[in-house]
Amino acid sequence: MSSTLQETYEALRDHARETVVLSSVEDLLGWDEQTGMPPEAAEYRAEQVTLLAGMIHQRSTDPKVGQWLARLADGPLVENPVSDTGATIRHLNRDYQKQLKIPRSLVEEQTRTSVLAQQAWVKARGNDDFASFQPWLEKTFELKRQEAECLGYPETPYDALLDQFEPDTLTSTVSRIFSALREDVVQLVSAIAESRRKPNVELLEQSYPPEVQAKFGREIAARIGFDFKRGRLDVSAHPFCSRPGPHDCRMTTRYQEHDFGDAFFSILHEAGHGIYEQGLPPEHYGLPLGDAVSLGIHESQSRLWENLVGRGRAFWEYLYPELQQTFSSCLKDVVLDDFYPAINKVRPSLIRTEADEVTYNLHIFIRFELEQTLLSGELPVADLPAAWREKYRDYLGVEPSSNVDGVLQDIHWSAGLVGYFPTYALGNLYAAQFFASADAALGGVSSRLRRGDFTPLREWLRENIHQHGQRYAAVDLVQRATGQPATHQPFIKSLQAKFAPLYGL
Amino acid sequence: MSSTLQETYEALRDHARETVVLSSVEDLLGWDEQTGMPPEAAEYRAEQVTLLAGMIHQRSTDPKVGQWLARLADGPLVENPVSDTGATIRHLNRDYQKQLKIPRSLVEEQTRTSVLAQQAWVKARGNDDFASFQPWLEKTFELKRQEAECLGYPETPYDALLDQFEPDTLTSTVSRIFSALREDVVQLVSAIAESRRKPNVELLEQSYPPEVQAKFGREIAARIGFDFKRGRLDVSAHPFCSRPGPHDCRMTTRYQEHDFGDAFFSILHEAGHGIYEQGLPPEHYGLPLGDAVSLGIHESQSRLWENLVGRGRAFWEYLYPELQQTFSSCLKDVVLDDFYPAINKVRPSLIRTEADEVTYNLHIFIRFELEQTLLSGELPVADLPAAWREKYRDYLGVEPSSNVDGVLQDIHWSAGLVGYFPTYALGNLYAAQFFASADAALGGVSSRLRRGDFTPLREWLRENIHQHGQRYAAVDLVQRATGQPATHQPFIKSLQAKFAPLYGL
Repeated sequence: MSSTLQETYEALRDHARETVVLSSVEDLLGWDEQTGMPPEAAEYRAEQVTLLAGMIHQRSTDPKVGQWLARLADGPLVENPVSDTGATIRHLNRDYQKQLKIPRSLVEEQTRTSVLAQQAWVKARGNDDFASFQPWLEKTFELKRQEAECLGYPETPYDALLDQFEPDTLTSTVSRIFSALREDVVQLVSAIAESRRKPNVELLEQSYPPEVQAKFGREIAARIGFDFKRGRLDVSAHPFCSRPGPHDCRMTTRYQEHDFGDAFFSILHEAGHGIYEQGLPPEHYGLPLGDAVSLGIHESQSRLWENLVGRGRAFWEYLYPELQQTFSSCLKDVVLDDFYPAINKVRPSLIRTEADEVTYNLHIFIRFELEQTLLSGELPVADLPAAWREKYRDYLGVEPSSNVDGVLQDIHWSAGLVGYFPTYALGNLYAAQFFASADAALGGVSSRLRRGDFTPLREWLRENIHQHGQRYAAVDLVQRATGQPATHQPFIKSLQAKFAPLYGL
Repeated sequence: MSSTLQETYEALRDHARETVVLSSVEDLLGWDEQTGMPPEAAEYRAEQVTLLAGMIHQRSTDPKVGQWLARLADGPLVENPVSDTGATIRHLNRDYQKQLKIPRSLVEEQTRTSVLAQQAWVKARGNDDFASFQPWLEKTFELKRQEAECLGYPETPYDALLDQFEPDTLTSTVSRIFSALREDVVQLVSAIAESRRKPNVELLEQSYPPEVQAKFGREIAARIGFDFKRGRLDVSAHPFCSRPGPHDCRMTTRYQEHDFGDAFFSILHEAGHGIYEQGLPPEHYGLPLGDAVSLGIHESQSRLWENLVGRGRAFWEYLYPELQQTFSSCLKDVVLDDFYPAINKVRPSLIRTEADEVTYNLHIFIRFELEQTLLSGELPVADLPAAWREKYRDYLGVEPSSNVDGVLQDIHWSAGLVGYFPTYALGNLYAAQFFASADAALGGVSSRLRRGDFTPLREWLRENIHQHGQRYAAVDLVQRATGQPATHQPFIKSLQAKFAPLYGL
């Protein structure tokens, strides 16, 4: 008896679901590795992860999956591409076909290269020795060129790489949006640089006991909507958020006694990721309908809570008295009119991860422009440090005195992550666009934040973004949620509205 | 080209090693579940564990393993049964044959029954309602009878169950050892009861801040030899120790502010398990040569550090000044001559897990005797509460007023763990026998402990016990390490030497 299409669909879905169980276990191993695994356990952990990764790979490339998909891919179950079956089959098919396009030998060479390139990067960074890293970067981009050719692309090879992080978005679209924004941001940065107002950030550098920071951060994460019955908060060297189960979302941060903002805003950031993850439909965990749609959309959720809520005036009108009480020895004599500018200080700097809300995107534009010319071969890797310095001078008015503060600062390229950087900036733009739409739809978000009522905003995000998983492409999700395509306008408007009064522009 | 025996052996070993990687991941999931998994993550965790357990089962019962074993089991590689190949093949074959003997349907019924029986136990305990648990206990013992018949046994069905926890040890041997000991212990308990010396345990019930307990306990665990580069200490409801990797040993405890001894001695106990695990050859992790030989031997290591070291006078002559300084508000006016009796108070009680060093084994004898008669059917489950009360009166002179403090106190039987209890008492006896031999071999352990030198004792244990894994059976290991078969003499001697002066007997 031959099976019906519905039965084939269920076999496909159940097979994928079981693969997801394995990858969720892999996620847990990764979380454990970052948060507290004994140091000498690393070698065997690699064996555990390798075995699971092999099983996952074997399952996802199983020819029977191909047979199921061939039967389903153009049939009635995908007629409506955003129905449950349509979206699920489309995405599973896309992932399967992608895997088929890249030869095993290329995957293996990329894996090997990325391990060695990362080691070379660590060493080069330690010795400020770009030359020793150069051959690895050349090799990485050569392999990325091959990968793009295998995958195919609509306009330019970079499209193929970008698509892995921000599906269905073209390089030309991103370029257009970024270009429109760049001049405005550069101008704003200059105006701020000329302002005579200088926020006093020293008040954030007093002694904030880590255990009090942890308790306070946890409390606020819960208040904005991170559900600790379905998640936790731990410490790791680099903050992250992962979800090794539908009701098991784990975020991390790290505490610095003499920097209040570092942990607090990273908790808001990771909680933003976490609230998105917790808002995805748990019954579709790990499958297209239960998975985040793109890195840009994911980052929009973290940046929204970190910057648009967490660095906003309304939020602190609500929370500042409590903060003063919690850290009274630091803040009892500090007024909100001094605290608020301090957490919003703008200063062009060399390091992306330390950049403020205004200058951050400029760091991304630089990487986005450089990696395109590196991929095309237009910019030889040997000329990268000089090109880097030039762009930092042009866009930010600063210039690294060493490659450690320049081209060697980020791990991404050494790890083979090319096409990833633009999603950070897209996240900022999407965040502002979503926030503006929520504000309009709710008749003013600020008044809610000012009384600590985070529910309407969170529910708007859940309704318009989280619940959809990958049902709609990121571009369509933005259009549906905000009534217009992705645009830089809300972002620049939001910056101007906030920073003009702060710096008396 | 047909493979050589050596190649077959390597295929068998590598296959087992890969299965161990999966079960190590399962161990990590179990650890995570106990130590901090978000509460709502439990359901999906069960799916993760079930999938892994199924894969492990499939791998371990793979017919090709049977073919390899058939080729190897009587060949030259097992000629020397304690060689690397001999011990490995013997144990893998034993485990494989055992799995073949029990029909899948029985395994499944036992799994289902144990889940339901544990739920029934929790409920019965909550309502002090033995009658509602009785049918589950009847069913459990019925299934255990079937299991024993499937497995076969040398003398009595109980042998087959005991063998799963204490391999190669007969019920009759255990009975003989326990009988020899019982009268002596009962007498000692009576003598102590009549003594007029009453240690003051209130001094242990002052306010000992949990975070200070944690720091102190961790420090002492490291000092006796638990390696924190290869392990960690966390909090869980019930203390345990597991090792989800060759260099990844994780123990837990829980802290009670008003009970210093509870966490401190449980840390020493778990550290004893951990030091054993860390002393097993890491290159054979999870395989017979790298695995603990029996539960009795495992327990001997925990009890040795907990009781023979940790509740000994020499240890506290070394450590007490530091303890006083650490908890000065509790102990600054308490002299060692009061502290030492307090941590060694003997009092017949109803609850096994709270029992002291002297009375503990009596709790075990009761369970051991009862579970044999339950298994044989001689004692109907309906009569168990009465039989329980009678034995407590006879052996300990106390009688539970409810089944909650009686037959419903332990989870073991509801979980299908029949034949497990005697390993606790064997552990106590082995511990004393090992300690006496180490003492003789090292020319006095106490003088070393008195100056905080734990290395010679630990190295003696590593040399004589840990490094061997399952190369020798537990009984042979005892014989080799101590020059005589397992006996109760060192244990009773050690009790008398310690408690006669303490209680002025």
